[in-house]
Amino acid sequence: MPAAPLVVADPATMRAAVLAARVAGRRVGFVPTMGALHEGHASLVAAAAADSADVVVSVFVNPTQFGPGEDFDRYPRTFAADCDLLAAHGVRWVYAPAAAAVYPPGDATRVVVGGPALGFEGAIRPGHFSGVATVVCRLFLAVPADVAYFGAKDWQQTLVVRRMVADLGLPIEIVVRPTVREADGLALSSRNRYLSAADRGRAPVLAASLAAAASLWEAGAAPADIVAAMRARLAAADVAIDYAAIVDPESLAAEIDETVGAVALVAGRLGTTRLIDNRLLPPRQAGPR
Amino acid sequence: MPAAPLVVADPATMRAAVLAARVAGRRVGFVPTMGALHEGHASLVAAAAADSADVVVSVFVNPTQFGPGEDFDRYPRTFAADCDLLAAHGVRWVYAPAAAAVYPPGDATRVVVGGPALGFEGAIRPGHFSGVATVVCRLFLAVPADVAYFGAKDWQQTLVVRRMVADLGLPIEIVVRPTVREADGLALSSRNRYLSAADRGRAPVLAASLAAAASLWEAGAAPADIVAAMRARLAAADVAIDYAAIVDPESLAAEIDETVGAVALVAGRLGTTRLIDNRLLPPRQAGPR
Repeated sequence: MPAAPLVVADPATMRAAVLAARVAGRRVGFVPTMGALHEGHASLVAAAAADSADVVVSVFVNPTQFGPGEDFDRYPRTFAADCDLLAAHGVRWVYAPAAAAVYPPGDATRVVVGGPALGFEGAIRPGHFSGVATVVCRLFLAVPADVAYFGAKDWQQTLVVRRMVADLGLPIEIVVRPTVREADGLALSSRNRYLSAADRGRAPVLAASLAAAASLWEAGAAPADIVAAMRARLAAADVAIDYAAIVDPESLAAEIDETVGAVALVAGRLGTTRLIDNRLLPPRQAGPR
Repeated sequence: MPAAPLVVADPATMRAAVLAARVAGRRVGFVPTMGALHEGHASLVAAAAADSADVVVSVFVNPTQFGPGEDFDRYPRTFAADCDLLAAHGVRWVYAPAAAAVYPPGDATRVVVGGPALGFEGAIRPGHFSGVATVVCRLFLAVPADVAYFGAKDWQQTLVVRRMVADLGLPIEIVVRPTVREADGLALSSRNRYLSAADRGRAPVLAASLAAAASLWEAGAAPADIVAAMRARLAAADVAIDYAAIVDPESLAAEIDETVGAVALVAGRLGTTRLIDNRLLPPRQAGPR
């Protein structure tokens, strides 16, 4: 049985440990999380462990990425179970700072990203991506790893993080790994546990609408028609749609180059639970249809 | 004669050089500048050289800290003379990136600071401190030195930089060095060369108003009376006052604790040239006056 990870709360201690490992020639991989770990996180940790000598996982429920009235207070906190899962994967360090270590007294600094952060989640959740960029910047400074891993489920978030890393010149590689799904297609999310039994039953409709979109895309359907089909399918399952769209996979702009590909994005509410999902649409021949 | 500094334009090359020096046990000091170097900069470089084995000076006229209609285009650029001065001080590296190396294509990320950035220069120059914080963050990532030096002449800027460094957890020490002045009191500034002969003649009134403020402060005068005296003196010299104030030296709040001390801030325009200056007011006994 692998040793339990060392839990570190202090940013300076964490930073020194990671730098010492790197100076000793050990590649360090980092998986930032908000805890409540599931098999999606586990796949990121496994990818990190496969590529690096040492793995750090942060567990920090970041207050600044939640808006007023969102689920910060009730966000699931399962730290002991998280540590068990990480021990089983041979993780060396769990970075679990107190809020005051990430946001010191008098804190007045935010990292603000435009570009890919502006629509979709950024429009529906004002301040969300500023909170994400701010905490990821601080985490990358406290955990100066070689490489960090993010899940494709939060596609727009991966674009925001990559944009920030490129713009600020943060010296870390970003790897995006595929979404992990339940057998019925539902993308794994810490928020799935909010779902009532009835809502859990219809939740796979997000993934099903994306699968239908992929089929229509492959068959040559026009993006507007594909989006209409997605919306109809979600509405039939009584999902309150926040958005359904086919956009450029890098810029999230409405103008797409079909020979490059696209991404289908969907977000909606089932009862009181908000879910998002997405699916990459591969390059296809452009032409009249 | 000391060797000329090595001029480095590429952020990754610069970063690798600084990290290699530090791994070899050499302390590295960093002086960020916009070039057009004067004796104020030279005093920062001398302080860095006294404390560190290797000194890096950046020369980068940062577009994002200039507002529309400000002097970005005509800001003095004297790179060859700057390099001569830095050679004389034994500087090892001059980091002189192109704008596209600091702001890559598609750049959409800004570091935004509230708190001490909100009033005074922040109010008069919207976006200025976001530009400062953004470029200093990027410079600190490209030049991961042990310590960086700033001049007290831009007092509010030193507060913004210190706030950002504390909040993001940037691993660098900030040292603030005293303002260097001409014999007649005028604070050194790259912008002093904009002054006409007549405006140069009356420019010492900013420092004189601060010296008068310090005398009145020491004599126990009330802050409002001191500010009135400063304003009268500046107005008599036909300075278009942007602000004159006595505030808390850390927060720049109007409420001061006289037993802690204060800072007197002044900014105004002489012809087309805008000048700022400040002076720390030491702790004094509080009490009725």
